[in-house]
Amino acid sequence: MKTKKLKDYSELYSEKIERIPKSFLREILKLTSGSDIISFAGGLPNPECFPIKNLRKAAEKILEEDMANTLQYSVSEGFLPLRNWIAENYRKKYGWDTLPEEILITNGSQQGLDLLGKVFINRSDTILLERPSYLGAIQALSMYQPNFITCGLEEDGINISELQENLKYHTNKLTYLIPDFQNPTGICYSLEKRERIGKLFEDYNGVLVEDNPYGEINFTGKTQLPIKYFHNGASILLGTFSKVIAPGLRIGWIYANQKIINQLVIAKQASDLHSNTFAQKMIYNYLIQEDSSEHIYQIIETYKWNCDLMYEEIEKHFPSEIKIIKPEGGMFIWAQLPSYCNTWNLLSICMERGVAFVPGATFYLKGEEIHNSMRLSYSGSSTEEIKKGIQILGNTLHEFLQKNKKDYYEKA
Amino acid sequence: MKTKKLKDYSELYSEKIERIPKSFLREILKLTSGSDIISFAGGLPNPECFPIKNLRKAAEKILEEDMANTLQYSVSEGFLPLRNWIAENYRKKYGWDTLPEEILITNGSQQGLDLLGKVFINRSDTILLERPSYLGAIQALSMYQPNFITCGLEEDGINISELQENLKYHTNKLTYLIPDFQNPTGICYSLEKRERIGKLFEDYNGVLVEDNPYGEINFTGKTQLPIKYFHNGASILLGTFSKVIAPGLRIGWIYANQKIINQLVIAKQASDLHSNTFAQKMIYNYLIQEDSSEHIYQIIETYKWNCDLMYEEIEKHFPSEIKIIKPEGGMFIWAQLPSYCNTWNLLSICMERGVAFVPGATFYLKGEEIHNSMRLSYSGSSTEEIKKGIQILGNTLHEFLQKNKKDYYEKA
Repeated sequence: MKTKKLKDYSELYSEKIERIPKSFLREILKLTSGSDIISFAGGLPNPECFPIKNLRKAAEKILEEDMANTLQYSVSEGFLPLRNWIAENYRKKYGWDTLPEEILITNGSQQGLDLLGKVFINRSDTILLERPSYLGAIQALSMYQPNFITCGLEEDGINISELQENLKYHTNKLTYLIPDFQNPTGICYSLEKRERIGKLFEDYNGVLVEDNPYGEINFTGKTQLPIKYFHNGASILLGTFSKVIAPGLRIGWIYANQKIINQLVIAKQASDLHSNTFAQKMIYNYLIQEDSSEHIYQIIETYKWNCDLMYEEIEKHFPSEIKIIKPEGGMFIWAQLPSYCNTWNLLSICMERGVAFVPGATFYLKGEEIHNSMRLSYSGSSTEEIKKGIQILGNTLHEFLQKNKKDYYEKA
Repeated sequence: MKTKKLKDYSELYSEKIERIPKSFLREILKLTSGSDIISFAGGLPNPECFPIKNLRKAAEKILEEDMANTLQYSVSEGFLPLRNWIAENYRKKYGWDTLPEEILITNGSQQGLDLLGKVFINRSDTILLERPSYLGAIQALSMYQPNFITCGLEEDGINISELQENLKYHTNKLTYLIPDFQNPTGICYSLEKRERIGKLFEDYNGVLVEDNPYGEINFTGKTQLPIKYFHNGASILLGTFSKVIAPGLRIGWIYANQKIINQLVIAKQASDLHSNTFAQKMIYNYLIQEDSSEHIYQIIETYKWNCDLMYEEIEKHFPSEIKIIKPEGGMFIWAQLPSYCNTWNLLSICMERGVAFVPGATFYLKGEEIHNSMRLSYSGSSTEEIKKGIQILGNTLHEFLQKNKKDYYEKA
C-alpha cells in the first residue's frame, strides 16, 4: 500500500459495510421533521404515551439513593433485578421456567440482532426472513454477510408451504420472524400457524428468532403464544421497552438458553462492555412502581383509537382497488395497490401535497422488491392529522390509480 | 441439517465468536468483588472521583425540562450539542478545525472499536497493535477476523525500527495505538516518537487509530499532542467520558474525517440505532456547568497521590530485580519480573494472601505472551490498601523470586 496519500478513503472500507442497505427511512424522517408534512412514515411511538411522571420518579430514586454504583462500570449481562423482572414476566405470562441467567440486556432489540450476527453467522450462512421484513434486521444481519432467503406472508402469518419448501432445500443457520403485528405489514400469526411452525422447526438445527417489539400493543385482549411455546430447539426471543416505555433509553433484551447467553455475553462485552446502567435502573424502578402496569392500557387505547380512525378514513377515501388488512395491534397499516402502481412515484406526489408514508419496497431485499405497497404508521399522529392526511392520500390515490391504469392499458 | 434436536448448540456458533480471547479480568473481578482481597487488578475509576453532585444537577435539568424529547428515538450520529462540545474542545486544545459532523457518539470507546471493525476490516486484513495492548481492543477487533501483527513498546513509545520493518512487509488496514499512558504499561509516547510515527504513516494508506481514555489524567501538566497532529492521512481518534466523568453512562466518541463518519454512522445504526439520549444529555448538561472543568484537577490529584504512594511503597518493598517505569499519568503501573518468573503462579499465591493484580500475559496475543510481567492499578485503592497490599506483594515477591531463581539455576 505504498501509494500516496488518499483523498478519498473508499478503498479502505470493508465489503460488509458496502453491502448494508441504506435506510430510506432516515432520509424521509429528515425531510419531514420540522416541516408541515403530515407524516405516516415514521415508526415512532407517540410521545404522549411516554410515562414521563413515573419515569421521573424512577430517575429521582437513582439520583437520591444510588449514584456511585450507577456511575461505575458494571457487568456485561445487565442489571440483575431487571433481568429477574423480565424472567418473571415470562414465567407469569406463559408458565415457563425462565431464569434471569437466560436474559441478556441489550441496547434496544436492534443490538440483539447485531449480537446474534456475531455469535451465529459465518459468511454465506443462510438466514431466513419474512418477505417483507424489518429493515433494521436486514441491516444488522447484512453486516455478517449471510445469504438471505425469504418466505412470503399471508394474512395469518408466513406461507407454510413456501417455508416447508425452503427448509427442504436450505440449511438455515437462523430464521428471523416477527409473529406479532409485524413490521411493516401489521400481520399477526394465527395460533395454528405458530404451532405448525414450532413443530416444523423441531426437525432443524438452526436458531429460531422471534422479535416482538409490538406484542404488548394488542387491541384484542387475547394473549399471543410465542412460537417458542411449541418449539424445543434453539429458540431465541428478542424484547424491548422501546414501544411500551420509551425508545430513547435504548433498553431491550435477549431471552435464550444459558449456553447461548454465555456466547452472547462475550459478544456484548466486545461490542460495548455493558448497557448504560442509569437507563437500566430507571426502567427497573419504573416497572416496580405500583401503577406502572396501568400505563400499557393507555398506550393500547391511544393506538387502537388511531388505528380505528385511520382504517375508517381509509375506507371512506381510498379507491376500492386498494387492499388493506385491519391490524389487531402494533403501529402499522399495510396497503397494497394494483400491481401496475409504483408507490415511489406516488410518494413524490404526496410529499408535494403534504403527506408522507414509506413505500413498501423499502422492506424487501434487493431484487425481491414489490413496488405497489406502502406502510402507514398511525401511532404518532393526531386525529386531525389522520383525517386530513388520509383524505389527501385518498384523493391523490384516485388520480394516481386512474392515470396509472390508463398508462398500463395503453402500453399493453 | 435434518438431524435431531441439539442438546448443545456449539456447532451453531460462528468462527469469530470462538476466536474471541476470553477476559481473565472479568473472572478476577468476580473473585475479588465483595471479598476482603485488596485488588490492584481492576481498571476501574475511583468512585470517589465521580462528580455526583453535578451529574445529579445535570440529570435534574432533563427531568424538569426535556423529558419527551429525551425519551423519543433520536439520530444515530448522537446529540448535536454534545458533538459540538467535543469538536470545540479539539479546536481549543490543538488549534484544529474540527467540526461536529466529524464526531460520532458511541457507547464508550469500546463501541468505537466495534464500529471501526465493521467499517474497515475484511477477514484476514492486517491490524497492527502495540505489544502488549488493551485486551478490549483485541476482543472487539478479533470479531472481524483480522491478522494481527504487533510492535514492542519502549519507555518512550512504540519501537520505531520494529514499526518500520513491519510497515515494509505488511499492508496494514488499521493501526491501533494508545499513545497516552497506555493500558496496560502506563507508557506515554515522547513528542519525538509521535512526530516520527505521524510522518512514517504519511506514506501508507491504512487507518491510524489513536485511543485516548487516559490522556486527561496527566500528572505533568504538559499537553500531549496526538500523532494526528503530525499526520494528514486517515487518522481517527477515539475518546471517552468514562475516566473523567463516569463509565456507567457508557458515552464515548469517534473523531474522523466526515466521509469516514458517514460509514461509521451506517454501522452505528445497524448496531443499536443510537446511544442512550438521557446519558448524552446528562453529560452535556454536566460539561456546560460553570464548575465542571475543576473536577478533572481533583481526579488528577487523587490519582497522582495514589500513584506516588504506590511507587514509593514499591521502591520500599519490592526486590530490586523488578523493573518499574514510573507513570506520568493514567491508572496503571507495569512491573517486569526476571524472565524466569511466571506471574500466573505469583497471582495464585498472592490471592491466598489477599492481594490481586493482572498477570501481564493477559494483554498479549495468543502465542506472543510474556509471562513475567504484571499490571497494578492504583486508581481505585485507598492509602491503607496501597500500603498493605504492596507490602504483602513485596514480601511474596522476595520469596517467589528466590524460589524461582533457585529452581531456574538448578534446572540449568
